[in-house]
Amino acid sequence: MSEATREQVLEVAGRARQAAAELAPLPRRAKDAALNAIADALITRAPEILKANESDVARAREGGTAEAMIDRLSLTEQRVAAIAEAVRQVAALPDPVGESVRGYTLPNGLELRQVRVPLGVVGIIYEGRPNVTVDAAALTLKSGNAVLLRGSSSAYDSNTALVDVMRDALAGTQLPADSVQLVPGTSRQSVKHLMRARGLVDVLIPRGGAALINSVVEESTVPVIETGVGNCAVYVDASADVDLAVDILINAKTQRPSVCNAAETVLVHADIAEAFLPVALRALRDENVTVHGDARVRSYGDDVVPATEEDYSTEYLSLDIAAAVVDSLEEAVAHIRRYGSGHTEAIVTTSQGAAKRFVALVDSAAVMVNASTRFTDGEEFGFGAEIGISTQKLHARGPMGLPELTSTKYVVTGEGHLRGV
Amino acid sequence: MSEATREQVLEVAGRARQAAAELAPLPRRAKDAALNAIADALITRAPEILKANESDVARAREGGTAEAMIDRLSLTEQRVAAIAEAVRQVAALPDPVGESVRGYTLPNGLELRQVRVPLGVVGIIYEGRPNVTVDAAALTLKSGNAVLLRGSSSAYDSNTALVDVMRDALAGTQLPADSVQLVPGTSRQSVKHLMRARGLVDVLIPRGGAALINSVVEESTVPVIETGVGNCAVYVDASADVDLAVDILINAKTQRPSVCNAAETVLVHADIAEAFLPVALRALRDENVTVHGDARVRSYGDDVVPATEEDYSTEYLSLDIAAAVVDSLEEAVAHIRRYGSGHTEAIVTTSQGAAKRFVALVDSAAVMVNASTRFTDGEEFGFGAEIGISTQKLHARGPMGLPELTSTKYVVTGEGHLRGV
Repeated sequence: MSEATREQVLEVAGRARQAAAELAPLPRRAKDAALNAIADALITRAPEILKANESDVARAREGGTAEAMIDRLSLTEQRVAAIAEAVRQVAALPDPVGESVRGYTLPNGLELRQVRVPLGVVGIIYEGRPNVTVDAAALTLKSGNAVLLRGSSSAYDSNTALVDVMRDALAGTQLPADSVQLVPGTSRQSVKHLMRARGLVDVLIPRGGAALINSVVEESTVPVIETGVGNCAVYVDASADVDLAVDILINAKTQRPSVCNAAETVLVHADIAEAFLPVALRALRDENVTVHGDARVRSYGDDVVPATEEDYSTEYLSLDIAAAVVDSLEEAVAHIRRYGSGHTEAIVTTSQGAAKRFVALVDSAAVMVNASTRFTDGEEFGFGAEIGISTQKLHARGPMGLPELTSTKYVVTGEGHLRGV
Repeated sequence: MSEATREQVLEVAGRARQAAAELAPLPRRAKDAALNAIADALITRAPEILKANESDVARAREGGTAEAMIDRLSLTEQRVAAIAEAVRQVAALPDPVGESVRGYTLPNGLELRQVRVPLGVVGIIYEGRPNVTVDAAALTLKSGNAVLLRGSSSAYDSNTALVDVMRDALAGTQLPADSVQLVPGTSRQSVKHLMRARGLVDVLIPRGGAALINSVVEESTVPVIETGVGNCAVYVDASADVDLAVDILINAKTQRPSVCNAAETVLVHADIAEAFLPVALRALRDENVTVHGDARVRSYGDDVVPATEEDYSTEYLSLDIAAAVVDSLEEAVAHIRRYGSGHTEAIVTTSQGAAKRFVALVDSAAVMVNASTRFTDGEEFGFGAEIGISTQKLHARGPMGLPELTSTKYVVTGEGHLRGV
């Protein structure tokens, strides 16, 4: 763990601020050229990236890191090629900057336009995979922002190599190299300095587990966009088609259990419990899912383990699911309000009225009607890419694409207009 | 000063959260009826409101409060009627809730809609005038939110009476009375409890001076929207029409000096200084404005006092203005970046190119071209009303109307859609 002083972190943030000012007015062409230069450089310099990654992997192995984590950390030539390709895809997306969000002429003749502008300096605090280093940089640059990257210390050598490659690539373009910087230091202390860099950093986006996100939310004076924690529920309405409900539940729970849009809870209307639960429990068993159920759920399966309060609040991210029988749609909504994280909830129903009520009453970033919770995702939503999934209500909610990395500015044009009252 | 315990504040916030859940799905008709009921009650019960206000005013007088402040605090029958009329105007505005922000069918047939929903519980911390109590409540209710009001202790009796009247009026409507509540206590401590009520309160909007806003930003774990501090500049370009520039400057500085969109700085291109400054300084003098200028400005007027660094950063809110001569548009932009608060800047120019560059380079909520800075205002912008002017980049920037008091929700409708990869 290497320390960094407050001055060192603020100096880097100050350079990012300066870079952001230069970057903001650049046209799309300049940003796309820079992204393509980064993609080229990642391919050309893959050997040194892989070498740096090997040292992270070796350190992780020595430290006894689990193989699943080591797989997330590891880069290969193919993975680097995929990272470069993702950068090219971001370059191909439309530029959100300059888009008119509203525009009209006021009664007094003033012309008003609200246009998208970059946020400025975006700080990303993340764990896990080194590909996030490049993905996050590509999205922030494309939206005209400078980025400060603070990855996991376990990927420090990989991240350093990746950022070096990106900065060198930028040096041959119109974009300032300081548009992409690693936050110095690998200790908790350097994150704290970043979180207090109000005035230099415009927004922090923590990506990772609940502990990381809570600590940023608690301590940051820089505005934060919360991402990622997903305690998602599937509600099987009285009127549901049983087969369709089972398919959606299995897909939502098992198609990729380790991600935030996987289902963690199933709520079953009492009127359909007898038709649905035996089939559903068998299907879950076939997929090796452990069901944590209330008394009514347990009456349908001997292998259902008793659910605690804790179970209903837990984001398992594993082959576990909490289950309960509810007497009404409203009771399902109340359960979600009490235990959910406001990420994604799904209703399976054939009733138009029930769908409408569920959509109106559930207060989550995404509400699925007869579709798997797994669809809450920037690419699936057609955004081309995402920087994360916001579970807060301010600024952005749900998957965040390029427009969510912008702010707006009002441009008002007159001919000597003066205010009378 | 009366204390309130953490439990008391959280209890009120919890009731607001419950009210918000009931309020969110209500249709426009219910909200408009409630607002009109509030307006009626304000008129009917004006005598008791005025009586409560008299006791605030008497206390302020005893405490030696300045007459200007007492005028802000004072209510009259006419003022109460104007407050009620403003509530009716909010009722007449379109309901932002339910508006589709985006909507399309994805390649796999999923139908995606992003719709506006209320934020939930909005906390307003404010100083000054009791009319804010009603204005803020009307705007938050209309946008489907519950509101927690924390006004100045100097207006405590007035605010208590106003909130009583509003809650009683709500009791006869579909809206829960707990949609509008006063935060208990008048001490700093009760504000602190409110700022830490994350999970119960969705957003805090401080309205007031820089000290209030900074303390909320520093201490709050609830997301904050910063409002109001305006160190606004007028830049007179080399190509400006002198008369038009003088008119805009005088309007921006003197039409209402005590508000955030008044100009506090004038920056003059060196090439027009000789033509502009003698006329401008005379006009400012005629309006009793004290000019704090750099050496070049002082060479045009004996009564110009020397400007310090402090002057350029100050939001005077008085008949004072800081002035400097700059050698280029870029130097003006650099000055604004260094000293400005990101609220509103204006350029006076006849050059299309200069206007375009200034708009592109200035990073403020509003940029005026040949118009007074005083136009940055929700009513002037055609929003019908405003809850404040955001000077931050996240969520809302510039004047905030009803849509800025909402979040969004994705509603995704399928027919048993499952995710494949």
